[in-house]
Amino acid sequence: MSSSFQEIILKLQDFWASKGCLITQPYYTQVGAGTMNPATFLRVLGPEPWNVAYVEPSVRPDDGRYGENPNRFQLHTQFQVILKPDPGNPQELYLESLKALGIDPRQHDIRFVEDNWEQPAISAWGLGWEVWLDGQEITQFTYFQQMGGVALDPVSVEITYGLERILIALNNAKAIWNEDYGAGVTYGEIRRQEEFEHSKYYFEVADVERVRAMYDLFSAEADACLAAGLIVPAHDYVLKCSHSFNILDTRGAISVAERQAFFRRIRELARQVALSYEEQRKNLEYPLLKKTTDDRPSTIAKPSSIVNGPSSFLLEIGVEELPASDVDIAYEQLSQRIPTLLDELRLDHKDIRIFTTPRRLVVSVASLSPNQPDREDLVKGPPADKALDKDGKPTQAGLGFAKKNNIDPSSLEVREEGNNKYVFALVKQTGRPTPEVLAEALPKLVAEIKFEKSMRWNESAVAFSRPIRWYVALLGDMVIPFEYAGVVSGNISRGLRPYDSPEVKITSADKYFDIIREAGVLLDKEERKAAIVAQVNEAAHLVGGEAIIEDGLLNEVTNLIEMPTAVMGEFNSEFLTLPRDVLISVMKKHQRYFPIQKNGKLLAHFIAIRNGDDIHIDIVREGNEHVLGARFADANFFVREDVKLKLEEYRPKLSSLTFHTKLGSMLDKSERIEKLINDLIPMLKLEKDEAIFARRAAHLMKADLVTQMCTEMTSLQGIIGCEYALRSGEQNDIAVAIGEQYQTVPQTKPGLAAALADRLDSLVGLFAAGLAPTGAKDPFGLRRAAIGVVQPLIEHDVDFDLADAVKKSAKTQPIECNDEAQAKILEFITGRLSVVLKDLGYKHDVVEAVLAQQSANPAASARAVKQLSAWVSREDWQSILPGYARCVRIIRSANLDDRPLTIDDKAFIEKEEKDLYAAIQSSAVHRPSSIDEFLEIIVKLIPSINAFFDKVLVMAEDKKVKENRLGLLQRIAKLSDGIADLSPLEGF
Amino acid sequence: MSSSFQEIILKLQDFWASKGCLITQPYYTQVGAGTMNPATFLRVLGPEPWNVAYVEPSVRPDDGRYGENPNRFQLHTQFQVILKPDPGNPQELYLESLKALGIDPRQHDIRFVEDNWEQPAISAWGLGWEVWLDGQEITQFTYFQQMGGVALDPVSVEITYGLERILIALNNAKAIWNEDYGAGVTYGEIRRQEEFEHSKYYFEVADVERVRAMYDLFSAEADACLAAGLIVPAHDYVLKCSHSFNILDTRGAISVAERQAFFRRIRELARQVALSYEEQRKNLEYPLLKKTTDDRPSTIAKPSSIVNGPSSFLLEIGVEELPASDVDIAYEQLSQRIPTLLDELRLDHKDIRIFTTPRRLVVSVASLSPNQPDREDLVKGPPADKALDKDGKPTQAGLGFAKKNNIDPSSLEVREEGNNKYVFALVKQTGRPTPEVLAEALPKLVAEIKFEKSMRWNESAVAFSRPIRWYVALLGDMVIPFEYAGVVSGNISRGLRPYDSPEVKITSADKYFDIIREAGVLLDKEERKAAIVAQVNEAAHLVGGEAIIEDGLLNEVTNLIEMPTAVMGEFNSEFLTLPRDVLISVMKKHQRYFPIQKNGKLLAHFIAIRNGDDIHIDIVREGNEHVLGARFADANFFVREDVKLKLEEYRPKLSSLTFHTKLGSMLDKSERIEKLINDLIPMLKLEKDEAIFARRAAHLMKADLVTQMCTEMTSLQGIIGCEYALRSGEQNDIAVAIGEQYQTVPQTKPGLAAALADRLDSLVGLFAAGLAPTGAKDPFGLRRAAIGVVQPLIEHDVDFDLADAVKKSAKTQPIECNDEAQAKILEFITGRLSVVLKDLGYKHDVVEAVLAQQSANPAASARAVKQLSAWVSREDWQSILPGYARCVRIIRSANLDDRPLTIDDKAFIEKEEKDLYAAIQSSAVHRPSSIDEFLEIIVKLIPSINAFFDKVLVMAEDKKVKENRLGLLQRIAKLSDGIADLSPLEGF
Repeated sequence: MSSSFQEIILKLQDFWASKGCLITQPYYTQVGAGTMNPATFLRVLGPEPWNVAYVEPSVRPDDGRYGENPNRFQLHTQFQVILKPDPGNPQELYLESLKALGIDPRQHDIRFVEDNWEQPAISAWGLGWEVWLDGQEITQFTYFQQMGGVALDPVSVEITYGLERILIALNNAKAIWNEDYGAGVTYGEIRRQEEFEHSKYYFEVADVERVRAMYDLFSAEADACLAAGLIVPAHDYVLKCSHSFNILDTRGAISVAERQAFFRRIRELARQVALSYEEQRKNLEYPLLKKTTDDRPSTIAKPSSIVNGPSSFLLEIGVEELPASDVDIAYEQLSQRIPTLLDELRLDHKDIRIFTTPRRLVVSVASLSPNQPDREDLVKGPPADKALDKDGKPTQAGLGFAKKNNIDPSSLEVREEGNNKYVFALVKQTGRPTPEVLAEALPKLVAEIKFEKSMRWNESAVAFSRPIRWYVALLGDMVIPFEYAGVVSGNISRGLRPYDSPEVKITSADKYFDIIREAGVLLDKEERKAAIVAQVNEAAHLVGGEAIIEDGLLNEVTNLIEMPTAVMGEFNSEFLTLPRDVLISVMKKHQRYFPIQKNGKLLAHFIAIRNGDDIHIDIVREGNEHVLGARFADANFFVREDVKLKLEEYRPKLSSLTFHTKLGSMLDKSERIEKLINDLIPMLKLEKDEAIFARRAAHLMKADLVTQMCTEMTSLQGIIGCEYALRSGEQNDIAVAIGEQYQTVPQTKPGLAAALADRLDSLVGLFAAGLAPTGAKDPFGLRRAAIGVVQPLIEHDVDFDLADAVKKSAKTQPIECNDEAQAKILEFITGRLSVVLKDLGYKHDVVEAVLAQQSANPAASARAVKQLSAWVSREDWQSILPGYARCVRIIRSANLDDRPLTIDDKAFIEKEEKDLYAAIQSSAVHRPSSIDEFLEIIVKLIPSINAFFDKVLVMAEDKKVKENRLGLLQRIAKLSDGIADLSPLEGF
Repeated sequence: MSSSFQEIILKLQDFWASKGCLITQPYYTQVGAGTMNPATFLRVLGPEPWNVAYVEPSVRPDDGRYGENPNRFQLHTQFQVILKPDPGNPQELYLESLKALGIDPRQHDIRFVEDNWEQPAISAWGLGWEVWLDGQEITQFTYFQQMGGVALDPVSVEITYGLERILIALNNAKAIWNEDYGAGVTYGEIRRQEEFEHSKYYFEVADVERVRAMYDLFSAEADACLAAGLIVPAHDYVLKCSHSFNILDTRGAISVAERQAFFRRIRELARQVALSYEEQRKNLEYPLLKKTTDDRPSTIAKPSSIVNGPSSFLLEIGVEELPASDVDIAYEQLSQRIPTLLDELRLDHKDIRIFTTPRRLVVSVASLSPNQPDREDLVKGPPADKALDKDGKPTQAGLGFAKKNNIDPSSLEVREEGNNKYVFALVKQTGRPTPEVLAEALPKLVAEIKFEKSMRWNESAVAFSRPIRWYVALLGDMVIPFEYAGVVSGNISRGLRPYDSPEVKITSADKYFDIIREAGVLLDKEERKAAIVAQVNEAAHLVGGEAIIEDGLLNEVTNLIEMPTAVMGEFNSEFLTLPRDVLISVMKKHQRYFPIQKNGKLLAHFIAIRNGDDIHIDIVREGNEHVLGARFADANFFVREDVKLKLEEYRPKLSSLTFHTKLGSMLDKSERIEKLINDLIPMLKLEKDEAIFARRAAHLMKADLVTQMCTEMTSLQGIIGCEYALRSGEQNDIAVAIGEQYQTVPQTKPGLAAALADRLDSLVGLFAAGLAPTGAKDPFGLRRAAIGVVQPLIEHDVDFDLADAVKKSAKTQPIECNDEAQAKILEFITGRLSVVLKDLGYKHDVVEAVLAQQSANPAASARAVKQLSAWVSREDWQSILPGYARCVRIIRSANLDDRPLTIDDKAFIEKEEKDLYAAIQSSAVHRPSSIDEFLEIIVKLIPSINAFFDKVLVMAEDKKVKENRLGLLQRIAKLSDGIADLSPLEGF
């Protein structure tokens, strides 16, 4: 039963040869993937067809694990297939190839999991999937969109099998080493020693200076080859550059900044190779572009015009597996669009229902009218004096207009419009039959569905989330014929992927739901979700635990399957010693499993959701257990290696990690944070202990970035720092603060201080370096950093002088950050603060009013916004605001240049002004310090203000009198200084 | 019917997988051959079994032809198979694999043609064959003996298919480009553009300084890896060194001297890798060395002891195809050995006949006695006084001796030997039966056959020319059982290779010849040779020409086949414009074809000798025609490229060709030759015209070395120079002189001068550089150079002062060549001269006598030797020599220190001395200038000399008288000065 490595290769070669693929050989220079082989990199360019399959032993130095890890190696073996153009059924061909290997889809869980493939080093990208076999990624399946910076037309399908993983899966093995390579020799006997040696070479022995020198030589030779028009030799040297770069990177010899330079250089070379190749093929007149007869389906049938009464309508857009988020995006768009579309099409209908799954987008409309109603339109023609002669008979122009609108010339009417007269035709239109209308509208409907990332796949050049493979379009039992994206509508749907997507005939729109449920598909997302929750909870109870069901994961998993079946698996409980976040992160992010806990502690179990029923579920379980075990083993390897040093010992290595060329290394940043936190501690009023913790946290907080675990799972930065701090014997509060640094709102004061110091340093430094976000671009995440400054201050309700903090940070930067730059930073932060406050539900005008005065102190502005919101919703607000507003408006229109006027109480003439002065003297003894204080004063003043305005003419002829009166109003207007500027308020 | 490239690969993979081979992948670094892949280079080391097959795209920069040549490429695709240990039938497995590809041995001519594989760059060698399919080399088949300097045990069988050639052969194609690679895409469409680009890169674009720098870096990394015990990474860098060396070489950037340094370095690295790997596997306890049960055949049967009367005896040693020369070597040895062996074995017999073919060595003995005769041996025992007591009774010692010889103690005899007495035993031995005797003797007989180069192949570790695969050993119809080299004797022979070597049962020794002839084998070499000559002549007559049948080729071809069938083929007559020597060289040396000429001009035909009958002979013809066409096309390519420049224009490029580090470039040598020839011209007495030709020839004679044609076919150096000189418009005599430079004896005087100048320069320069031949080592071919100096001088009969010539050459050398060195050079040349003269049939003593005086003038010494030889064979020689000899001996014993004595005619006392003096005065008026003149004088003097010695006492008491007499004899003795020293002569 068990397979050997070479059998897998021989079978795949035979399979793809039988499908018309060329079988070629691995490349003779170290490559990281089969994609780099010229048989892919070059041949996917340009219009010529190309179908090829080959093995590619792929070298990735930093994946070396000295032969200790059972699943990870510096060399793994790919089997690469390129299908150009898209044959129309590449997924099916692929699944057939798995069957040829003995992998029966009914016995496993085979999943196409969204993957946006990108290789920036060669300016290449594509969309597609990782293919999972029982949770194990065994294949990358990509529709290439771009290579070497060149857009691909046609698109190529790339299928990359990971042969080691397939062998492990096929043999249900724990590790690769003892599996048969062939001829009775194990994989380990052939490769393990070599794996050790290469790992050691790449990590320890490779001489950095020499490999750098090699890189330079290779790169120079690539240039020379390009200059001489030698494309394949140039490409070879680009690959050599790439490999030597990988060695340097593995040796830890490349700083972040350098990395960019290396990438740029390799990318530019790859781009030149690609462009030169395109040019060359063009000059050679595309020799492989053999004339093929156009075998596209003949013309589309004409829609019927006879429908008997209202019928159900059904549209199913069949697609290759959509990314989870796109399942929702399509749902939203269809839900919004269909009702308006039907309105636009003037088709009566009853209920509209929309369903989306990873494989189908479904629109169901009940009782759709058999046709549009008839209608009359008044169509405007030429001016009357042009269209009719003096006798009122139609001229040539008039006749032409009548003919064009298909009416009798005698029925032209003259109507006045503006000051002119025109002829008009009353055009009667018979409503068109619904099939005709839909046949026209449906392609447009499909075309209107937009996704964040979309891709082309065939010569139609249509872009969609993933390829469209079928449409079912039925009005009653009648097919609505249309074609879009090279696919013609019909009444054939496809069943579940694990059942081999059998063709399913939909006999009528009404029967669709029964037939499709019969086929095993749960169309309704909520139904799928509920089923998952129920099954997951049930499974968790079996082991006396409770499942951790996080909404995002639940939603994603629901969108990954059409028929959910929970599978509970175990893992080795020794792995429970790994940091909890590592365990959860691996389970959730990498594997989409639901973890299980009991009394807050994880159990050594997990729940996976299979797409399909429970046949052979044990195989699926074992497969998933194996995968998880392997991933945990990998994590374990990192942790074991990492904890050989204390966290503090990693800190000096931060010097090799560039933060930014102008701002120095991460170690430099770390040192700036330490300085800044000393300033922030008093500003944030930390207790003595808290201050100690904060300082230590600031010292250690970035050190985890250079650990292997963080290099591997970047999302765990901080979390790993916390964990390793504890394992290094640091105090709990320090560890917590380190862990909190990336949380938007740290819970502890030391965490708050550390996070603020870090974020302020980034904001100030990067703004100073001229790297402020522009438009949609925010490569350094500065918007998030700014939110991370204001939101915690609000939630901790700590008064804080942002302007002062920015100034202090500016002093620590290695480059100048002048007043103007500081102002821009504060303005930027204010922008975010405004967003945060509005996100809390406060009205725009209220937020604006407060921020006009208090933006530098987020906590205070939050309090003020809250108070002001209460005031503006008071019933008597309209009796408070206007009087105050009148004061402010007069003062502003007086253009006093903010010059404070002096008041001479002897110059008052009227009683009302004397009263108002008295009221001010008694009410506003202190400057108000909050919205409430301020407005309480105003409330008290309002009667006097109103009386004042009733009786007193502010703009008196006598200048002295006028200035005295203005002075009174200025005193009132200035009461809000430092608190708010009420002028943006509605009703001001 | 036609095959695609990928089908060939897939079929070979399937075939070898079915034979238990691992199927692995090409290596990910550019290699020149599959042998460099660690799956071969490393795994053949040590005792572990290893069976593997893989494709290897092999990169050989200097084979690049810009995609213009239909058969030669910088990248060709090997399919590599390693069988370790030898499975016992690797040739049969290989032929089976050809059948799997659709190559039926009955439809083709498949030949195993001797090939001694050697890769000095990795210190590797092995013996085996090129496999020819209809004249085309399609596979290298090698028994590896050594790798990386390490002797292999067990030996690995390496089978390397050349896939491009197989595709061409299978599809009977003219060129590879239009053949199907697979999936309807041609080989050319995939590879031709790339072939062009890589060729251009390797020949024109690669930057020499950068590639040198790469080499240095790779080499340093290899060292670092070795130091860290990282064998596979080290090997990878060795391969990278090798590839960059190849690039430099193709760019023409490596001088001969540098090449050695590069080779040494790579070889040393390869050796270290190999040794380290051996050590590592040993430390790992050879994990692949699984215990296997010993399945060797059970014990050999016992020879029968009953034979009825004399019977015929037959021994057939069945072997894999022997090299042609080894077929003769085995014949010689068996012819000498068998008679003496049978004598030693005391077996009576009648006729002995020996036959050898490439597949079998046959000994046939008529009427072999059924047993040895009985015999008595007198065995000597201890001294009588030890063996017998005083009473004559045996002592312990006597008893022991009797017992040992299995005789009764009473039968001990006492005999005298010298002056002592011993006891003797008369031991009677019954003759042993012949089967028993032979069973013991035959393994030893096989072991005694020795070849110049021999190889091991299985665990017996026996060395033979090629593996032994069977023995037929019959006495009458009885098998003589024995085992040697792991093979057990029987009565099963094998038929013809083209008939698939069917098993042939030999029912009795007498019937062997009929059966084996019936099987199609022509055992008798003379019969095969006659058949070839007859068929070849017949074929040549068909096209009205005559075959050029050169003895060496005829002999070789006769030894390559067991059943000759001539096949005549044609080639494109356009190729007849190629130099005749190129055409002949390609046909004879490369293809073993007989050329055909008419009136001294070649015809566009050739005759090949197929091994087998004439079935499907057309396929064989077409195949051979294709191969020859391809070879001629290649030559044509070189010539076309070469003649773009005149011969003189190549001369400056000689500066890039190092002659020797101490002696400069070939250009330096060329300039020295030009100087020297000016001195030689008067010495050789050239006419005026001849002098002009000689000078011009000297100027141009080395220029062809840097042409492509010469680089390709080194054996044509000089011949190409001649051809290109003519095409460059040089005069015919100059071209001829250039062409003659490598001939041992140039026919023309300018050729003679040029050759002498070249050879003297080499001798003088290399001796001065301390590179004289030592022992068997003569890396610079100085023995041949010395012969090339003396032999032409003899044949042209030109007097020449070698000492003067050497002195003049010494003056042109860039390093000192002092008198002592010059003396050594002359001595060395004299040694060769002596050999040449003796090879002419002259007796050793005569040659020695002459060379003692005339070695510096070869022509004169040859004349002298001839004359002296005539004298010594005269009947009266014994009446001439002794008298003269007596004179010489007396003079020598007088120790006169060569001091000439004065003669005072007044001091003579006796008549006889006066007479002798008078005779001398009248006979030796002039100094004799030749042997003849000298000996004619002696003949005249002899009566006087004899009379003198009869009557005169030379050693008189009176000193004056004595000296006067000695003076007389000295005059006589000195007559041979400068002519000969007769003292070495027999009878002196």
